[in-house]
Amino acid sequence: MDAMTLPERSEHLLGALQRRLGPQAVLVDADVPARNCNDWSASLPNRPRAVIRPVDAAGVADAIITCRKARLPFVPQGGLTGLCRGAAPEPGWVAISLERMVGIEEIDPASATITVKAGTPLETIQKAADEAGFFFPLDLGSRGSCAIGGNLSTNAGGNRVIRYGMTRELVLGLEVVLPDGTVMTSLNKLLKNNAGYDLKHLFIGSEGTLGIITRVVLRLFPKPRSTMAALCALKDYSAVVALLDAARSGLGPLLSAFEVMWPDYWDVITARAGVRPPVGAGHGFYVLVEAQGTDESIDAPRFQSWLEDLMERGLLADAAVAQSLAQTKAFWEVRDICAEFGQVLGPHNAYDIGLAVGRMDEFATRCKADLANGIAGCESVYYGHIGDGNLHLVSWVTGLPIERQPKAEMDAIIYGLVREMGGSVSAEHGIGTLKKQWLGHARSEAEIALMRTLKAALDPDQLLNPGKVI
Amino acid sequence: MDAMTLPERSEHLLGALQRRLGPQAVLVDADVPARNCNDWSASLPNRPRAVIRPVDAAGVADAIITCRKARLPFVPQGGLTGLCRGAAPEPGWVAISLERMVGIEEIDPASATITVKAGTPLETIQKAADEAGFFFPLDLGSRGSCAIGGNLSTNAGGNRVIRYGMTRELVLGLEVVLPDGTVMTSLNKLLKNNAGYDLKHLFIGSEGTLGIITRVVLRLFPKPRSTMAALCALKDYSAVVALLDAARSGLGPLLSAFEVMWPDYWDVITARAGVRPPVGAGHGFYVLVEAQGTDESIDAPRFQSWLEDLMERGLLADAAVAQSLAQTKAFWEVRDICAEFGQVLGPHNAYDIGLAVGRMDEFATRCKADLANGIAGCESVYYGHIGDGNLHLVSWVTGLPIERQPKAEMDAIIYGLVREMGGSVSAEHGIGTLKKQWLGHARSEAEIALMRTLKAALDPDQLLNPGKVI
Repeated sequence: MDAMTLPERSEHLLGALQRRLGPQAVLVDADVPARNCNDWSASLPNRPRAVIRPVDAAGVADAIITCRKARLPFVPQGGLTGLCRGAAPEPGWVAISLERMVGIEEIDPASATITVKAGTPLETIQKAADEAGFFFPLDLGSRGSCAIGGNLSTNAGGNRVIRYGMTRELVLGLEVVLPDGTVMTSLNKLLKNNAGYDLKHLFIGSEGTLGIITRVVLRLFPKPRSTMAALCALKDYSAVVALLDAARSGLGPLLSAFEVMWPDYWDVITARAGVRPPVGAGHGFYVLVEAQGTDESIDAPRFQSWLEDLMERGLLADAAVAQSLAQTKAFWEVRDICAEFGQVLGPHNAYDIGLAVGRMDEFATRCKADLANGIAGCESVYYGHIGDGNLHLVSWVTGLPIERQPKAEMDAIIYGLVREMGGSVSAEHGIGTLKKQWLGHARSEAEIALMRTLKAALDPDQLLNPGKVI
Repeated sequence: MDAMTLPERSEHLLGALQRRLGPQAVLVDADVPARNCNDWSASLPNRPRAVIRPVDAAGVADAIITCRKARLPFVPQGGLTGLCRGAAPEPGWVAISLERMVGIEEIDPASATITVKAGTPLETIQKAADEAGFFFPLDLGSRGSCAIGGNLSTNAGGNRVIRYGMTRELVLGLEVVLPDGTVMTSLNKLLKNNAGYDLKHLFIGSEGTLGIITRVVLRLFPKPRSTMAALCALKDYSAVVALLDAARSGLGPLLSAFEVMWPDYWDVITARAGVRPPVGAGHGFYVLVEAQGTDESIDAPRFQSWLEDLMERGLLADAAVAQSLAQTKAFWEVRDICAEFGQVLGPHNAYDIGLAVGRMDEFATRCKADLANGIAGCESVYYGHIGDGNLHLVSWVTGLPIERQPKAEMDAIIYGLVREMGGSVSAEHGIGTLKKQWLGHARSEAEIALMRTLKAALDPDQLLNPGKVI
């Protein structure tokens, strides 16, 4: 083998792996499917040298060792719904896809845990939990496509963070294959386990740069027995903050969502997307408040009287309370329509900002003006999980294709303002490669140096997803 | 300086540090106070070579660099209330104590955060939060003495984990001095921040072996507006598990504590500690259930009717509901009395086990029998935060002083059973040195190897708290 060139050696090693794992497990060059060439970000695809699709952790380890011998960089792939190219391959890389590692391994009612393979779609887990009489609270727009391993790798947020926390808080144990091929099985089911370092948090949120997650133990929760929702219209942002305070103290831990929409968002969805909103236009802000309780007969009247009290106190300009599950769903469509912004707005760039709750409107106002003044024809709309300090915005210049949208100029204006206001360039989407140049706007040199120390300790040869995040 | 011996060099370097930081900041040899020689475990004290007491992170960094130059191992110290010798010095070490780094730096109502110095006692933080109109939920018996930095280092649990999570879940940001003297300031206040690796979780729960935490940003919560408590008597453990299920689904997120006491615990506190319990003796189990709500007028009747329904269904043998805050406190005394077991039982060893909720009673029954059969005169009692999967037990042989208690034999029986039943040798107390030999009972070789990799990456010279945990 020493007489081989490096490409010959790669071909030889991938061929041997294919013989060990089966023909469906290794797809090379032209056989690589389009889906494995990109994520959901608005980027150009890259065809990897090969896609390896193992069915278990031993297969992932075999794939990793093969890549190491061939000196081929490798990237883990789940549902490929990421927005920052964390799971996107570079030319010449190998993709290790978990698409065949799908399924529920165990539901343990006594421990209230579900153990799943890392390639399992989020929605499959939600349904399995529901059928077993439990509730799995992680929920995001890509639920049908995203894989739980990717949810862990990006520490996904979504709609219920205010009540249940981010993905990190829902994980009890995991199995991971390290960059050297070691399988580390740490499928802890215990809520409290202080026996040595908590290793799972190293892999959650590190975007597949420190190991490849292969199995996960997740927490399950009791099913909510009542769901209440209201769409509220308010005069100004100080009323929004007052409503959040009132929701936190008045609804307490029942509060399960607090989604704020700025009026420009409202105008776009009513004028361009044809949504028929439950309250009228012309208000300063719109907030979707949701609470989950344990007893419909007590919780629903209580929610109603909590709202009436706020109305009497003059905090709300208008409010509609959902009278049925169908109405609750309709309220959520107002918020979820942003998943279809591609159709509604045409080509645009999406941002995911972490900010202090109290400064959100200041940011939105300044950002909108700076974009409009700095870039000819630039529009932007604002919305987000405000209860979690997470603002989303999309910006675009009407009529330009995605490759001609002035992304670099938008980035500079938006992330410059984030830095100035002490925010984060990523609240929930991650860094990948697309936000890498802006990481220093949110993290100090000492922090980034420590990230590099950890990466070098686990992956000294820089073969696992190199150049991502840091 | 090259002509100096190592002890001369240490003396010279510590003298220079004292001139820089002030005479109160460096205490050497005989001037080292007794408090810095031990933690709260039943161990013999070790006098360190010196105690350094900086007032800020720069002082901690200076202390660390001094220790490195002198090749002296150093250990961080907070309230020294740990039970596993994580903060206890070995002979010849330097203790870097945070006892002068005490105080609240900021309460930010808009972000619902409190920023504190790491040496601040937990109770000081609870009171400051309360005075500012918030609730800080971390609570444990040593609240008046333990320091928040130590709470982070051990990822402390305590009484409210079932509702608010462990210390880890309450931390948003921290400042830490790394083993090389780098000050890493990561005082994040954002609930969602996925900009790069989440570094704080590396330091939380690693027992001061990866860095010295100097400041902390903690989450604050709305004050509960109602507190309901009941002391329930039950026939058997299956009724306890059914009660836990009923509490989770019926009280939902209001459930704030679920503390179980086995009958031997009950007998000890009534017969020997003189506690007058709110329900009679002779039952199979005793459970303290607590719920925190947002509206006394709705929550209290609801809690009462939830209990009455369980009584009618035959799940409870007896129950007392607290009718006042004083009664709630009296109920908690029944559970908190274990902090005085030293006076009640005499010399004993305390254990802190993580276990699947469903197998707790099987463990307790087998463990009690194995201890009684294996060690002449060995008694044991069982209690714990069962809702979190955390069992405490104490065991002793009456009449023996602590140094003659058969700890090694007890350890072998108890931790052997923990391993067999897939539990953890530490749910909340940590490993330190006292449980180090048992770490392999709860964690795999691959996990321990990764812990060593992390330790070597951050502290290649093994000078920060060496030999602890791993």
